[in-house]
Amino acid sequence: MFYHTKRLQFEAKPEQPDPVYAHKLQELIGGAWGEMTVTMRYLFQGWNCRMEGKYKDMLMDIATEEMGHVEMLATMVARLLEGAPSDKTTAAAENDPVMGAIIGGMDPQQAIVGGGGATPSDSNGYPWNGRYVIASGNLLADFRSNVTAESQGRLQTARLYHMTDDPGVKNMLKFNLARDTMHQNQWLAAIEELKADGVEDTVVPNELFDEEYREHASTLWHLSDGDSSQEGRWASGTAPDGDHEFSFVSNPEPLGGPASAPKPPEHLYGTTW
Amino acid sequence: MFYHTKRLQFEAKPEQPDPVYAHKLQELIGGAWGEMTVTMRYLFQGWNCRMEGKYKDMLMDIATEEMGHVEMLATMVARLLEGAPSDKTTAAAENDPVMGAIIGGMDPQQAIVGGGGATPSDSNGYPWNGRYVIASGNLLADFRSNVTAESQGRLQTARLYHMTDDPGVKNMLKFNLARDTMHQNQWLAAIEELKADGVEDTVVPNELFDEEYREHASTLWHLSDGDSSQEGRWASGTAPDGDHEFSFVSNPEPLGGPASAPKPPEHLYGTTW
Amino acid sequence: MFYHTKRLQFEAKPEQPDPVYAHKLQELIGGAWGEMTVTMRYLFQGWNCRMEGKYKDMLMDIATEEMGHVEMLATMVARLLEGAPSDKTTAAAENDPVMGAIIGGMDPQQAIVGGGGATPSDSNGYPWNGRYVIASGNLLADFRSNVTAESQGRLQTARLYHMTDDPGVKNMLKFNLARDTMHQNQWLAAIEELKADGVEDTVVPNELFDEEYREHASTLWHLSDGDSSQEGRWASGTAPDGDHEFSFVSNPEPLGGPASAPKPPEHLYGTTW
Amino acid sequence: MFYHTKRLQFEAKPEQPDPVYAHKLQELIGGAWGEMTVTMRYLFQGWNCRMEGKYKDMLMDIATEEMGHVEMLATMVARLLEGAPSDKTTAAAENDPVMGAIIGGMDPQQAIVGGGGATPSDSNGYPWNGRYVIASGNLLADFRSNVTAESQGRLQTARLYHMTDDPGVKNMLKFNLARDTMHQNQWLAAIEELKADGVEDTVVPNELFDEEYREHASTLWHLSDGDSSQEGRWASGTAPDGDHEFSFVSNPEPLGGPASAPKPPEHLYGTTW
Amino acid sequence: MFYHTKRLQFEAKPEQPDPVYAHKLQELIGGAWGEMTVTMRYLFQGWNCRMEGKYKDMLMDIATEEMGHVEMLATMVARLLEGAPSDKTTAAAENDPVMGAIIGGMDPQQAIVGGGGATPSDSNGYPWNGRYVIASGNLLADFRSNVTAESQGRLQTARLYHMTDDPGVKNMLKFNLARDTMHQNQWLAAIEELKADGVEDTVVPNELFDEEYREHASTLWHLSDGDSSQEGRWASGTAPDGDHEFSFVSNPEPLGGPASAPKPPEHLYGTTW
Amino acid sequence: MFYHTKRLQFEAKPEQPDPVYAHKLQELIGGAWGEMTVTMRYLFQGWNCRMEGKYKDMLMDIATEEMGHVEMLATMVARLLEGAPSDKTTAAAENDPVMGAIIGGMDPQQAIVGGGGATPSDSNGYPWNGRYVIASGNLLADFRSNVTAESQGRLQTARLYHMTDDPGVKNMLKFNLARDTMHQNQWLAAIEELKADGVEDTVVPNELFDEEYREHASTLWHLSDGDSSQEGRWASGTAPDGDHEFSFVSNPEPLGGPASAPKPPEHLYGTTW
Ligand SMILES: [Ca+2]
Ligand SMILES: [Ca+2]
Ligand SMILES: [Ca+2]
Ligand SMILES: [Ca+2]
Ligand SMILES: [Ca+2]
Ligand SMILES: [Ca+2]
Repeated sequence: MFYHTKRLQFEAKPEQPDPVYAHKLQELIGGAWGEMTVTMRYLFQGWNCRMEGKYKDMLMDIATEEMGHVEMLATMVARLLEGAPSDKTTAAAENDPVMGAIIGGMDPQQAIVGGGGATPSDSNGYPWNGRYVIASGNLLADFRSNVTAESQGRLQTARLYHMTDDPGVKNMLKFNLARDTMHQNQWLAAIEELKADGVEDTVVPNELFDEEYREHASTLWHLSDGDSSQEGRWASGTAPDGDHEFSFVSNPEPLGGPASAPKPPEHLYGTTW
Repeated sequence: MFYHTKRLQFEAKPEQPDPVYAHKLQELIGGAWGEMTVTMRYLFQGWNCRMEGKYKDMLMDIATEEMGHVEMLATMVARLLEGAPSDKTTAAAENDPVMGAIIGGMDPQQAIVGGGGATPSDSNGYPWNGRYVIASGNLLADFRSNVTAESQGRLQTARLYHMTDDPGVKNMLKFNLARDTMHQNQWLAAIEELKADGVEDTVVPNELFDEEYREHASTLWHLSDGDSSQEGRWASGTAPDGDHEFSFVSNPEPLGGPASAPKPPEHLYGTTW
Repeated sequence: MFYHTKRLQFEAKPEQPDPVYAHKLQELIGGAWGEMTVTMRYLFQGWNCRMEGKYKDMLMDIATEEMGHVEMLATMVARLLEGAPSDKTTAAAENDPVMGAIIGGMDPQQAIVGGGGATPSDSNGYPWNGRYVIASGNLLADFRSNVTAESQGRLQTARLYHMTDDPGVKNMLKFNLARDTMHQNQWLAAIEELKADGVEDTVVPNELFDEEYREHASTLWHLSDGDSSQEGRWASGTAPDGDHEFSFVSNPEPLGGPASAPKPPEHLYGTTW
Repeated sequence: MFYHTKRLQFEAKPEQPDPVYAHKLQELIGGAWGEMTVTMRYLFQGWNCRMEGKYKDMLMDIATEEMGHVEMLATMVARLLEGAPSDKTTAAAENDPVMGAIIGGMDPQQAIVGGGGATPSDSNGYPWNGRYVIASGNLLADFRSNVTAESQGRLQTARLYHMTDDPGVKNMLKFNLARDTMHQNQWLAAIEELKADGVEDTVVPNELFDEEYREHASTLWHLSDGDSSQEGRWASGTAPDGDHEFSFVSNPEPLGGPASAPKPPEHLYGTTW
Repeated sequence: MFYHTKRLQFEAKPEQPDPVYAHKLQELIGGAWGEMTVTMRYLFQGWNCRMEGKYKDMLMDIATEEMGHVEMLATMVARLLEGAPSDKTTAAAENDPVMGAIIGGMDPQQAIVGGGGATPSDSNGYPWNGRYVIASGNLLADFRSNVTAESQGRLQTARLYHMTDDPGVKNMLKFNLARDTMHQNQWLAAIEELKADGVEDTVVPNELFDEEYREHASTLWHLSDGDSSQEGRWASGTAPDGDHEFSFVSNPEPLGGPASAPKPPEHLYGTTW
Repeated sequence: MFYHTKRLQFEAKPEQPDPVYAHKLQELIGGAWGEMTVTMRYLFQGWNCRMEGKYKDMLMDIATEEMGHVEMLATMVARLLEGAPSDKTTAAAENDPVMGAIIGGMDPQQAIVGGGGATPSDSNGYPWNGRYVIASGNLLADFRSNVTAESQGRLQTARLYHMTDDPGVKNMLKFNLARDTMHQNQWLAAIEELKADGVEDTVVPNELFDEEYREHASTLWHLSDGDSSQEGRWASGTAPDGDHEFSFVSNPEPLGGPASAPKPPEHLYGTTW
């Protein structure tokens, strides 16, 4: 169960409205790597975690924090939209190219649908959706997805940091950047911990090594003519799992037969001779 | 530019048809972590790679391989559907509960839309879509997403491995499992290489550390009452980036003011006093 | 079965083209609360209505009208796009900031895909989809959704009314506003009628009151620290259904145990100790 | 900002696993009218509320509660999936039609993707998405949408109540039904309060009545040949807003000219004579 | 503007309920090639048609008919669901494998969401969406898409024809098959007519032939090692447009330089040396 | 299995960056009729083709080529974005209306998500998805869809050809236009060949003519009052299949009874008297 306080985790006050920037900021709310994604991802991972204790508790700590990040961003967007020219006509814009450019750069739905507020969508107006969530029950697989999310999230935040000069916006982003730094470190540390605790090792899942074809578990198939791919760490030497030796297959040939399919049942009316 | 050979990278021949399994196997074709995702993800990352040389060449090698994995799976699905009871009526199923169960477990679109073939959808019939692709131009951020994809991919393949007894299907999956092992190792090695080459470090992006609020870059906010989260590697000690000391905020208070929004422009008809 | 006349229900003639406004008007065609939604919603509700007579007949009357509203808006969009600078280059726009602003504010797909016509999408280019439709078979539940649709619809129309000065566009919107007024009143009246006819009462569905836990059917859980929520009509006194007394739980405690999940089957490779 | 306690708002313990029911229960988690919808809808409405005080505080109270409902349902699903035959083959099912039926009725992604847990999707596996959220800033329009959501939600819960005999599941649903009763009453009371406070009246938005064409604001157009639609409360008498007299147009004629569009710009290659 | 009659274009009465078949029939309602697609496609094409006269009038005739097909199918689905075991528990199904199979083969949303009625979704529960609509304004391009739609539509109907023995269902499908035959012929005839009228020729659009590189307008690039592709009508001889001679490029080489991209702006933090 | 060469099929070098055009060009990458669609459509059709030989081989030739077209366009987009003002603030734009217009016309995700590269989305930012793919197993049905795709594709390319003056962009588009000409001719020739080979005839599928109601297989129902629809080739004379005589039903009456549905099971709580 959850509780809420009206106060924001960190301040979200722009010095001035900027409706064009409010449009871009949607990416951090409802984008594939935005705050709704990490909120829902960590919540479902926490609920799906089958070990009581530190991993589950930590997942719920951070999930609960992320929900507050959605709140900060939604508040910022509403404030950036204060007094936005949502009711200006094209004719008015024609006399004022600057206003025309602003109108062209606004998110129409923030006005028409949201009444001057944020929507659960990305910066192209595409709605957030549940396929952005992964909660597989395997903590190593999921923590790797979490490092990714915080990496893409900090990257996008850094990009957006340069698209504004507003000290109030930058103030909030400096907090967000710091949290993303923390969260990258946190998930990397959690991955180390999984190994230290002996519950997960390098390759997900830590099973089926006797079943899989070992001769195909360490070869790089050279299928594109760029000839530098053999120079990397991934083409020779011991693999990160300590159990395989990388090798480079410079002229790979297919191992299977032709990709042909049998005739379908008659009443499906497929074309056959 | 691409070339194609009719032969499969590895054989994809079931011993017997199994339309219920054909349904489940769709997850590996068009699911969020399926072969279409890695194909398109590595292709867009390769095209978006701004350094000539080993990273870009390796991306194109593996992208090209993955496309062949979609082909293997689509071929397998068509073969598993051979002679499927796509034209059996409910009445017939009522006399034969086994057939009824089979019909209930089939993907209706594999028959009605695909004519006995695979579709670019997941095991719930949801179509693959482009938001599963990330190609940010930052190789560390993207390689982390690739480790994730191969981890979730091998995990799902391992789960599916136990849902069949067919030696032909298992034969193919043993190859797929091995390739996923290789690819996890490969991306982990590539991440090491990025650091060894000095082009990327731990926290993505490797910038804005002076701008972000350092005091918030290493604290775990304890926002859920599970009290074990402080026991982990992520709550004290040096962070993986070697630059921060983790700490635990046991009774965190919000730092911002209330989440209130200003009045919208009059003509948006928001409710205000 | 349907018949069609070429004439519009109401005139849809702008005085002048305005491609930027044509972009915004898409919200009323293919948005979540646009005319496609009410058309399909009322059609499916009408077909799903299990009582012959006035409710079903009324549903089909209004569904049939709404289809004509899609037609009016699509016609208006095509006329607003007459002569739109769909073939102007960025270079040309650079010499003419006004044109640049116009191009920036246009919907690219109205030109590239629609050839200068409307598309079945909203103002952010997101396609209309069937999840906007509800036809539950319970008329009270569905009529409540219809009041909502006409409320959001008139609200969006009112917002758009102020984004244009064109007398022809305003002429059409004055009709649309009036119809939305009628339709709000109509669904509110239909809800009254359901009660007057004794087929539906306040709480949907009018069942399971003996089964549900009555002690939890009238309490407001105070889970956010804003302390004014107890001042409303919803926190004390008799509820609208005449059967419950509202009360305010000022310090709510969870009633259940911890949110923990059992171990999954072994072959799903979840992480457990 | 939010806080979380590990304890559930109400208990969510089935007596026995039931993977087929776990599939159906997804509708209440990630369906259009499920708990994720009300959580996100009330959160965005609360953040978008432009009046400090009782309305905003109440929105945040209930939004925070709904998040706990998602938690209860996700926990229930994981428990219903305990020991599910996720690793049973089709061949095994052929010898055991009951197991075959169970496998046919399961959600494949709960096993393959979720590792035996809930996913943020509906009962057909379609992911929850942000277009289910409305937060227009107009409280009357939004509260009407909330009555709808709680009505559809209780209706779906009631339907699901009869699809199980498990006392533990029914125990939780008895709580959910009660909360939906409360929330329907709550939003209905809030609508009364908006009127009592004089901030909103019957027709949303309470504006543009002088602009709209009054002669079209109270007529029912009889466009389908079911002849009972004139018998309802909506076809004569005073409308709920107290300001219009309903009337019935028995043989409506279109008021506009033909739905014709002008020629598009030449370079769009439309077909014209 | 539209009118509606309560009577169906053709009868839609099953002899007996069949909820499993009701599930499959969703494909013809809300699938990519179902009746909602042709309804909306022809409507938008009709509204987007820039020539008054026979083409536009014919488009509106057939669009209006298709809407009646959605009605027939929705009615059929509701009747097929009469008495469906929507309230049967898994436990009950365990004692009755036939019922178990039926429950496994049902669409959960037809009961939980639709209350025993059709939904605007396909047979995998994916909602119909506006990207299935094309109305480009170029009649040849669009009529070709219409031949396709009626071809895929009749193919799917034919497949479904064999999945039932119910005389009432088959009776309706015999009408649908006939209409699809008519509509394929109709669009093929309309394509002939466009040419006979001299408004469109073979290649869409009939322009830019002097601009395009003629040497690349008739060659088949042999990029896959199946060596029979040169045997077809498409590899030699005169092309259908009467203006090109097909040829076969047996060992095609790329004509462009490497697929390399320039460095992005610094503040996007792309990885570069 | 596939191979890749680093060289592009054709050169893709703009003379100058043009980020506004890079936005529009997304339609040809990830739009419903873009290169991702033809790639995946031809691949799935090739894998689903149940006849070895020329048709299957040709499908794989052209599928493999199309993948190279995605590559050309993605490369072009990255180059058009070189130096794009992705890090310019709204304030800067206010001093420079031209830059304001450019920013307004850019795709925000190409910068924030793609780091200055293409995304797998259309020109409104909507992601490509698998429902754009059709591979029915019936070659005539599918080849008709392919003529359509190449027609819509060339039409959109032609429209985009006029939206740029850049000689480098135009150079690439001249190649694309030529290939679309070839591919339209190719699929038309393949349709002729199917008939010449006697494997498919005019109406898809070539079956069930004795079952369908012949009296409804050639009539045009006049359901819209435009009175020119009887003048076309489709209203009289012999149909393209050589087997039917078109006729015109000038005053069509419905053939079925009323569209009424039976009562649903009690526990679905539908509204009934
Ligand atoms: Ca965050
Ligand atoms: Ca793979
Ligand atoms: Ca309307
Ligand atoms: Ca709830
Ligand atoms: Ca039809
Ligand atoms: Ca192409």
